[in-house]
Amino acid sequence: MQRAAALVRRGCCPRTLGPWGRSQSSAAAEASAVLKVRPERSRRERILTLESMNPQVKAVEYAVRGPIVLKAGEIELELQRGIKKPFTEVIRANIGDAHAMGQQPITFLRQVMALCTYPNLLDSPSFPEDAKKRARRILQACGGNSLGSYSASQGVNCIREDVAAYITRRDGGVPADPDNIYLTTGASDGISTILKILVSGGGKSRTGVMIPIPQYPLYSAVISELDAIQVNYYLDEDNCWALNVNELRRAVRQAKEHCNPKVLCIINPGNPTGQVQSRKCIEDVIHFAWEEKLFLLADEVYQDNVYSPDCKFHSFKKVLYEMGPEYSSNVELASFHSTSKGYMGECGYRGGYMEVINLHPEIKGQLVKLLSVRLCPPVSGQAAMDIVVNPPVPGEESFEQFSREKESVLGNLAKKAKLTEDLFNQVPGIHCNPLQGAMYAFPRIFIPTKAMEAAQAHKMAPDMFYCMKLLEETGICVVPGSGFGQREGTYHFRMTILPPVEKLKTVLQKVKDFHIKFLEKYA
Amino acid sequence: MQRAAALVRRGCCPRTLGPWGRSQSSAAAEASAVLKVRPERSRRERILTLESMNPQVKAVEYAVRGPIVLKAGEIELELQRGIKKPFTEVIRANIGDAHAMGQQPITFLRQVMALCTYPNLLDSPSFPEDAKKRARRILQACGGNSLGSYSASQGVNCIREDVAAYITRRDGGVPADPDNIYLTTGASDGISTILKILVSGGGKSRTGVMIPIPQYPLYSAVISELDAIQVNYYLDEDNCWALNVNELRRAVRQAKEHCNPKVLCIINPGNPTGQVQSRKCIEDVIHFAWEEKLFLLADEVYQDNVYSPDCKFHSFKKVLYEMGPEYSSNVELASFHSTSKGYMGECGYRGGYMEVINLHPEIKGQLVKLLSVRLCPPVSGQAAMDIVVNPPVPGEESFEQFSREKESVLGNLAKKAKLTEDLFNQVPGIHCNPLQGAMYAFPRIFIPTKAMEAAQAHKMAPDMFYCMKLLEETGICVVPGSGFGQREGTYHFRMTILPPVEKLKTVLQKVKDFHIKFLEKYA
Repeated sequence: MQRAAALVRRGCCPRTLGPWGRSQSSAAAEASAVLKVRPERSRRERILTLESMNPQVKAVEYAVRGPIVLKAGEIELELQRGIKKPFTEVIRANIGDAHAMGQQPITFLRQVMALCTYPNLLDSPSFPEDAKKRARRILQACGGNSLGSYSASQGVNCIREDVAAYITRRDGGVPADPDNIYLTTGASDGISTILKILVSGGGKSRTGVMIPIPQYPLYSAVISELDAIQVNYYLDEDNCWALNVNELRRAVRQAKEHCNPKVLCIINPGNPTGQVQSRKCIEDVIHFAWEEKLFLLADEVYQDNVYSPDCKFHSFKKVLYEMGPEYSSNVELASFHSTSKGYMGECGYRGGYMEVINLHPEIKGQLVKLLSVRLCPPVSGQAAMDIVVNPPVPGEESFEQFSREKESVLGNLAKKAKLTEDLFNQVPGIHCNPLQGAMYAFPRIFIPTKAMEAAQAHKMAPDMFYCMKLLEETGICVVPGSGFGQREGTYHFRMTILPPVEKLKTVLQKVKDFHIKFLEKYA
Repeated sequence: MQRAAALVRRGCCPRTLGPWGRSQSSAAAEASAVLKVRPERSRRERILTLESMNPQVKAVEYAVRGPIVLKAGEIELELQRGIKKPFTEVIRANIGDAHAMGQQPITFLRQVMALCTYPNLLDSPSFPEDAKKRARRILQACGGNSLGSYSASQGVNCIREDVAAYITRRDGGVPADPDNIYLTTGASDGISTILKILVSGGGKSRTGVMIPIPQYPLYSAVISELDAIQVNYYLDEDNCWALNVNELRRAVRQAKEHCNPKVLCIINPGNPTGQVQSRKCIEDVIHFAWEEKLFLLADEVYQDNVYSPDCKFHSFKKVLYEMGPEYSSNVELASFHSTSKGYMGECGYRGGYMEVINLHPEIKGQLVKLLSVRLCPPVSGQAAMDIVVNPPVPGEESFEQFSREKESVLGNLAKKAKLTEDLFNQVPGIHCNPLQGAMYAFPRIFIPTKAMEAAQAHKMAPDMFYCMKLLEETGICVVPGSGFGQREGTYHFRMTILPPVEKLKTVLQKVKDFHIKFLEKYA
């Protein structure tokens, strides 16, 4: 009906409807007034609707900032408006956002960033010399010595050199080539760029992308957006979320029936699952990728976040080189790092890098071309990345303070990882694997049948129902396992361990109390 | 042959080839040594090649950083290595990168950024109070008062409020709603995000996107990437690159034969063409979009860059509202702004915003969901955007210096725009329309038949041949018109007017001398 009216109106001369030729301000005032008084009067159908939009974008889901987080925002507004709740604040444990949880920035990093931002400060005696040295090095590599210039599409040259030197040190001498380093807008940007280049084919030849389940939902979101085929391989919850190569074999065999599996994504240390892969397991994965001709994506943004004393981070790049030339000159690998995690937690700067190995030279050209369309990653984020890979060294003025701050953050995280595991495992109906690394707990929760029925009545997944109740009753915002993927019939949630120790204890206690009440209520 | 060998090798147990179980450092050393001695020995075919890659990405072109810029980089390296050339430096006039051309950052902007970066400076007497006030306001809106926290996917709330207030002031009171503001990673990010949502359908229903020719090649690149249909409408070079609605009608009519035209992109002031649209022309375009049910994209990143005394920037949003409710409550519009252009030229921070009008509420939800996958735009870029829309006002400590710096940049640009037009038009075989706005000249160049034959022999477009010769003989890097699109049989190049006045004069003189010699050589 509305549409018909609009079509009729299209027949008349719409120019006569507008207040053209009148003074602009009165016209604007009238336009605004008319809109307020009769907003529906002249509405016609929108061009861009759920029906007409890009269906691949419509299919995208991203639970870490999904409905539960929107609900958390609503509750915060209600609290601000004075509406009474059984709690006084919302605790956003849904995301790994260190500074928002009160973690202080690393002083040295921010000093260098401030010097780069406002170079007048290079004359100030309040800044240490090693910070000034870093800032000068970065500025000299920027056009016009300014963070305000575009960098090369691949990133500032000297920062890529510093990244390569860092990787070489990290990997005990395995060489890294600055030409293989691409600076990115956080790790997410690198991951989606590489996937974008990799996806091709139609029907049964469409590219299949293997991802762990549970996964970080960036992967499933980008796969949806690119209309690629998501190929799930399940991590072994009964075995500390280990990756089992037999499961990779099963997944790839089944996938070949309906797509062309071409990419294998690994998250190590795991997100949301927190496992740290053994060297043996990485070797097995690389061998599998070699055998099955899969392009490897190694998401290693939590490489500094390893807590279990019997675990160690091994980079895919290093293991690949140590397996000999058959692998190191053949397996195509892209690995990713970020300023957002580790001990620095500088999420807001959107800094990151990727290192590519065995990328065909023509593809490197294509990659630079694609990256150049968005001109360059934020140069301030590139500078932050530089400081992460090029921190103060013994003998430099800032070394002692830097080390103290870094150890304090990582030491606290290790404590909180253990604390969280221990406390969750004391609760009947919750089981939590060790948090070997990263910054999340992903406990399994038992949901009684009656609660499942209640969830169904609310048209919610059982774990979404659980998390919504937790949010509404305690103010704690966590993400349901269904947002990451989980074995059918199992339920989980992801919670960050970033809150300060005392606050984390309170949070854990509240989750425990909630869970026990929940079990009682739906017994 | 190589492939066959690889397949044979796949049959044996590759594990025996790797130096597993040996000490990691010796293994790494060997891997590295083997690689150096016989790099080709065990090469097998790559998974990711030009043949197997995403064909849409392969189709992407981006001339502003294309082959000519790669060549410029090579020449710079040769100069560094001491190779003699008829010039001593490469002048990168290919891109609008103000600071790289020596423009100084706006002091106030960088002061606020430094304060936000390193809040210890809030106690320093060397920073003005109005800068501190801005910094405190931004930090209070950031999680944990840190630029290192993620912001909301749509951007920091108070910055969106400041953007809305800016738009309202700019548009003489036409209201702007912070809820319609989305902060972005430069304008490019906003434009590609909106296009991504808009594209759908297959075959003759595939979304057509109307773009000006000449255009800024972000548009054609994103259209390729999304496999949408590019619908060209030609700007009228004989009429100062004006947009003619009859040409829009022709373009849409023809497009309907093979696609579904759904989007109309406008760049005002024009890039690369520098025209500033009249109010009447904008009204005509809006009426056309209304009539043809087209979603409008208004790229207004050069809104502060208007130089001709008889031109004025009119925002699409303002004109839309002044045309009355039939338009203002129906036409779907997204407009874009950026920190990279104007008088601040902060390209490196990748700051920007878009304002959406009449977006369906469900689509706004979809947009936030899509944006949330990449978490948030760089918070430092958001802060830079805040200062652009919320500069010092009369009575504030920094107002005088800020105004002086701003006027100096814009005054110089206006001078350079005139200078460039005048000088180009003195050269036989070059015709340059007035540079009414933006920051580029896009002169038409006459290319003699013999030069076209020489270009063909080099398998180059005639204007690419011309620009390559210009680069090789003078060190001046400009972008051929073919990278932006131009009417068949006409040739142009784009050159930024950002170099300092004296340098720009030298550049223009060199281009003039080159052009005259070029005409003589190929006469």
